[in-house]
Amino acid sequence: MQHVFIHEVVTRDGFQIEPQFVPTERKIELIDALSDTGVAKIEVTSFVSPKAVPNLRDAEQVMAGIRRNPAVRYVALIANAKGVERAVAARVDEVNLVVSVSETHNRANVRRSTAASFEGFGEIVRALAGTGIAVTGSLSTAFGCPFEGAQPGERVMELVQRYVDLGVDAVTLADTTGMAHPRQVEALASDVRERWPELEVALHFHNTRGMGLANALAGLAAGVRRYEGCLGGLGGCPFAPGATGNICTEDLVHMLDAMGYGTGVDLDKLLAASRRLGDIVAHDLPGQVVKAGKTTDLHPAPEGL
Amino acid sequence: MQHVFIHEVVTRDGFQIEPQFVPTERKIELIDALSDTGVAKIEVTSFVSPKAVPNLRDAEQVMAGIRRNPAVRYVALIANAKGVERAVAARVDEVNLVVSVSETHNRANVRRSTAASFEGFGEIVRALAGTGIAVTGSLSTAFGCPFEGAQPGERVMELVQRYVDLGVDAVTLADTTGMAHPRQVEALASDVRERWPELEVALHFHNTRGMGLANALAGLAAGVRRYEGCLGGLGGCPFAPGATGNICTEDLVHMLDAMGYGTGVDLDKLLAASRRLGDIVAHDLPGQVVKAGKTTDLHPAPEGL
Repeated sequence: MQHVFIHEVVTRDGFQIEPQFVPTERKIELIDALSDTGVAKIEVTSFVSPKAVPNLRDAEQVMAGIRRNPAVRYVALIANAKGVERAVAARVDEVNLVVSVSETHNRANVRRSTAASFEGFGEIVRALAGTGIAVTGSLSTAFGCPFEGAQPGERVMELVQRYVDLGVDAVTLADTTGMAHPRQVEALASDVRERWPELEVALHFHNTRGMGLANALAGLAAGVRRYEGCLGGLGGCPFAPGATGNICTEDLVHMLDAMGYGTGVDLDKLLAASRRLGDIVAHDLPGQVVKAGKTTDLHPAPEGL
Repeated sequence: MQHVFIHEVVTRDGFQIEPQFVPTERKIELIDALSDTGVAKIEVTSFVSPKAVPNLRDAEQVMAGIRRNPAVRYVALIANAKGVERAVAARVDEVNLVVSVSETHNRANVRRSTAASFEGFGEIVRALAGTGIAVTGSLSTAFGCPFEGAQPGERVMELVQRYVDLGVDAVTLADTTGMAHPRQVEALASDVRERWPELEVALHFHNTRGMGLANALAGLAAGVRRYEGCLGGLGGCPFAPGATGNICTEDLVHMLDAMGYGTGVDLDKLLAASRRLGDIVAHDLPGQVVKAGKTTDLHPAPEGL
């Protein structure tokens, strides 16, 4: 049985764009529930400016309040040296750095060039030396940019190399606005796996155009064994108000279970966490399995047949 | 460029379970719009008892009112000899027969055994001889039954053989309640293609648990080149009120376009038809691309970068 690692990002990627601030205790309660499901990593929060991401302004309190499961890696997104200090103080297991493959998207997102982003990452990695905190380098818009369109595969490879040169422990290719298609995913993921066979690679998909799980399937075909998901399919696309967000973690795990992959995740616990999330955000979520039930949940036959 | 044929089933499979009757003129208007999109087949309606499917009680008027595009095959579902008479009178190009792989589901659906269904199909096929009307044999619950659970692949193969023995022109494997997973689809579709390499095979998926397009991708890997879809992702699952229905035709075509398959379908016309469908049914539809836009629809970059 092949193992697939599940990285849950709902409390960071999902909550950051929620219209209402999620109270700190509800965040902690949800992360504690997720810590019991068997996911490999939880991206808990961001140590960035509270002005930039007001919904995650309670990052310290959340990190201090959660109950740590030693089998789970707790991750925070950081953007600069100040973030390093906060991540060290909060004893995160791992930090996540993010740069866009697209220059335009990077400028729109962090008001600097990708070259300037990587200069900053160099300082961050040096500051983290000796702390025992692992580093993941994420590449936003790796499968397309909403401003520039498709990004050349060679450009993606070049930026993976920059991360590798910095000495990161893992790289995540992110389809930030749901532009990836399966053939592209399989080609790019295969190229990355071939050039850096020892590198830990994860994929981050959005279901913006319905292709989320098809893209995960293409990633599996390329041999990638780590996927980021958002509980309930929370998240969104700033360019399309009605569009869905990240791929739904429990729908992904349900598919992997059915296909015979091992994830170590208890799907029933994940579904219970998803229902709790539904209570927390108090709006409809795109996740399907929580509504339809698992394929193994059978129904009584009509009487009198 | 490999060609994939698109079969649109919204006015039959989608409208049959709509809570409100869709007026005949709106059905005709929608089918006429679909006839211009480049889809290969349109399953227009059912010639069954108006008591069984009241929403399609206007089958004759709809067939008489549409403008036929000679490049499109117009299909109707029938269940018995009376259906043959009506199909002949309405000059359909093709009839669709349906039996469930699961005995329990077939009894629940049509109150008879699968053996009795095939006896009836024999009469239908004999009655159609010489009419020039083609016959497709569909297998419901081919990937799982909500009452019985997983169905043995050998049972599916046996029923395909029954259809082949009857002399049908095509077979459709239908995942009636969204229980299929990609590994199963690839295995079963490969087996069918291997045993009957000359048989026209189509796949019909539901997105009930989020795997719809992933299953289509698995079908493509097995070499199947015909897919049924519902405009807007209309349709539903009687066992899960909040669950989505059939795979969304325009989301499927959007994925195939991106992957470099040829479908002959004009995606913009299909999206326009989907917006028209949204007006007709006056409720939210699960289709994603109509909300998020195509991946090739770029956005202006923020000013002042």
